[in-house]
Amino acid sequence: MKYLSILFALLITLSVSAQTDQDQLKTIYSQSLTNGKSYEWLDYLSNNIGGRLSGSENAQKAVNYTKAELEKLGLDKVWLQPVMVPKWVRGEKEQAYFEVAGKINKVNICALGGSIATSKLGLNAEVIEVQGLEELKEKDVKGKIVFFNRPMQADLIQTFNAYGGCVDQRYAGAMEAGKFGALGVIVRSMNLREDDFPHTGSMSYGDLPVEKRIPSAAISTKDANKLSAALKSDKNLKFFFKQSCQQLEDVESYNVVGEITGSEFPNEYMIVGGHLDSWDLGDGSHDDGAGVVQSMDVLRLLKESNIKPKRSIRVVLFMNEENGLRGGKKYAEEAKRNNENHVFALESDSGGFTPRGFSFDCDQENFNQILGWQHLFKPYLIHYFEKGGSGADIGPLKNESIVLAGLRPDSQRYFDYHHAENDTFDAVNKRELELGAATMTSLIYLMDKYGVKKLEGEKEFKN
Amino acid sequence: MKYLSILFALLITLSVSAQTDQDQLKTIYSQSLTNGKSYEWLDYLSNNIGGRLSGSENAQKAVNYTKAELEKLGLDKVWLQPVMVPKWVRGEKEQAYFEVAGKINKVNICALGGSIATSKLGLNAEVIEVQGLEELKEKDVKGKIVFFNRPMQADLIQTFNAYGGCVDQRYAGAMEAGKFGALGVIVRSMNLREDDFPHTGSMSYGDLPVEKRIPSAAISTKDANKLSAALKSDKNLKFFFKQSCQQLEDVESYNVVGEITGSEFPNEYMIVGGHLDSWDLGDGSHDDGAGVVQSMDVLRLLKESNIKPKRSIRVVLFMNEENGLRGGKKYAEEAKRNNENHVFALESDSGGFTPRGFSFDCDQENFNQILGWQHLFKPYLIHYFEKGGSGADIGPLKNESIVLAGLRPDSQRYFDYHHAENDTFDAVNKRELELGAATMTSLIYLMDKYGVKKLEGEKEFKN
Repeated sequence: MKYLSILFALLITLSVSAQTDQDQLKTIYSQSLTNGKSYEWLDYLSNNIGGRLSGSENAQKAVNYTKAELEKLGLDKVWLQPVMVPKWVRGEKEQAYFEVAGKINKVNICALGGSIATSKLGLNAEVIEVQGLEELKEKDVKGKIVFFNRPMQADLIQTFNAYGGCVDQRYAGAMEAGKFGALGVIVRSMNLREDDFPHTGSMSYGDLPVEKRIPSAAISTKDANKLSAALKSDKNLKFFFKQSCQQLEDVESYNVVGEITGSEFPNEYMIVGGHLDSWDLGDGSHDDGAGVVQSMDVLRLLKESNIKPKRSIRVVLFMNEENGLRGGKKYAEEAKRNNENHVFALESDSGGFTPRGFSFDCDQENFNQILGWQHLFKPYLIHYFEKGGSGADIGPLKNESIVLAGLRPDSQRYFDYHHAENDTFDAVNKRELELGAATMTSLIYLMDKYGVKKLEGEKEFKN
Repeated sequence: MKYLSILFALLITLSVSAQTDQDQLKTIYSQSLTNGKSYEWLDYLSNNIGGRLSGSENAQKAVNYTKAELEKLGLDKVWLQPVMVPKWVRGEKEQAYFEVAGKINKVNICALGGSIATSKLGLNAEVIEVQGLEELKEKDVKGKIVFFNRPMQADLIQTFNAYGGCVDQRYAGAMEAGKFGALGVIVRSMNLREDDFPHTGSMSYGDLPVEKRIPSAAISTKDANKLSAALKSDKNLKFFFKQSCQQLEDVESYNVVGEITGSEFPNEYMIVGGHLDSWDLGDGSHDDGAGVVQSMDVLRLLKESNIKPKRSIRVVLFMNEENGLRGGKKYAEEAKRNNENHVFALESDSGGFTPRGFSFDCDQENFNQILGWQHLFKPYLIHYFEKGGSGADIGPLKNESIVLAGLRPDSQRYFDYHHAENDTFDAVNKRELELGAATMTSLIYLMDKYGVKKLEGEKEFKN
């Protein structure tokens, strides 16, 4: 009977606790959907500031704006964390065309971030189409423009996997083709849809000597298909493109940080963030304005929902995810230098679409604890709890014991907009954005309430 | 050992069978995402035909087009099922405004489907705002325009529930206000977003005598808010609206039906469908062009995936869901008259958004069988399997033993477009549409393969 009584008491405790968590999540979701601030903030960030490439005037405006908005929330601390960032500028609008039977076909391109310019007169050369880096060895690319045209795989359900299967062409195309004496690189945009938007993104020359570096640009999927078709009838087809982008000296910028200091364990840190910089095309509403405003709203929603966290909860708006990750690296360096015990980090950097769940980078014990909360999310149609990656900016915090997580929104539309001119405010749905903010807040609430599981034998952090 | 052997054999059978179903679903999803026809069909239906209100020329074009396309698929039978449908016409574009301090504020309205016209000069009267039908008893609405302004509840996660909580204002507002001597009705659009689009939809006068029938229109959410604000400062504010819609005589139209005849049980019917008619505003891409083309693609995808169904699978494109449900009723009548044994029906009429799962209207035994298939859908992020409603058009088929199901796509954006001018092709994402078609095909495949569970003691259907 004694055991039965204990069991009974335990069941009551569990059911009371579960009831409370259910109620708390309900409050959080209701607050976000009826009294959220994320959409209003995103409106300002997108429509009053716009694209926020690292080192740009707009990036600085975004730093100032988000700091000021965080200061209005009555957090315990708000500050800027200085970080040196690369400054790459696009210059004049790119031009490109190819000739078929004496007819000029203009095409939509944009320089890839980090690329050098063409000469002022542009580059005009024969084109050779390839499906991947490995073909460079087999084909004669010397003196030519290499056209990387391997499309994203449409039958992968998670579009980030399709992106992962193609992005080597964009990132390393110019570096590899440069080694074989190519003159330039054109890459099919990382987009599953057929349309006219070229999609930029980072590329690297690695250690390639300056004289082997060649300009590289993305071409829209529609124009990639046209070019490929034209090449079938004219193998000697010439392609022209001109771009005037350049890499300038590094400049100082900032991560923006706000904190609610924990009531019981102030030296255990849980962070939630997104990246404040974006590409210069469009206004970076999905990538990653959405993650920024959702993360800001997490701290506001905790307050509005009368949750007083036991641990210190920080929002971190990282600078320079797109072309350097300097903000993420800097934050982790400073955390280490200050001996701050970060136990949990959550990033939203996959667009402001309907949230489906999270992926977790953590040990099995913590993952099991998290799976125990899964039923609490069912009424909100949040079902995806899987092990996997988290977010680029929080990656540098990784160690043996931290729990890292990434919000996983529906990914079907993400690459329609990613790094392109059409990543704008009107492509974000208010409710979808707000559901994401509520989902993130709910996870932070649970992680704070129950804490992360310590590794066996791990020492308690000494304050 | 004997039992162990049996268990072992059973496990092998189950795992082989599961493997086969997994492979089959993979083929279906790949086919839909790389070789689907739904998007192309929807492009034609939306951009070459457009809005397809019952009894209109466009509705007839849609009948002809879909029949012709089904005939190209090599089905066993394709036919038209005649049905008489109501014919309501909008007439000239509606006009509306209210005056505040001598200043005219134009507002966006549209007549509700089934409404009578105002007089040719329009209707000009004082406005009284109410939040629901029950307030009509308490307030003096005689000689006034009643403004129903109860908004959809934003914190309901499933937006169809928020719609269900408001739509009585649209459907019965004029009928009820007419009883109390009101002169007209303006209803806040069933839209969670604040924008300029008025959303039409069906309304009814019930048995109200003709002399008590009053005109009713929907007003955009933005203008509803403006009107409500203006009423706070001027209780005697006058509102003007003019519309010239009318109800004509019923006309003949058609359900479009195609069939793959079953190889083993040809007299057991499983149907999949959507409704071919739409409202006249916009082109009805989400409501329900999406459901139409997905349903057509189910039969095509079965063939492309080399699935030869044991039971007869029919696609049914129903006419007149929006303002009469005549097609759905007719189909069920004919099925009964012809003694056709319908065992399963699936409808897609909730938009062409990312599919989340299905709701089922069936007994527990069948529901349990379906839950056993849930894991097969996990790789496609389909997780929602709940008991609930199915679809309006298949509702008339309901009996003790049939399994009814409705596709449940993500509902967050649905009411941004529902019954409004912006329900157009560009609001549909190709991949989201195709994922829906694949999800429907997968369920049809499984239902056909395993059959529905018969009620205990139920007689086998005699052919």
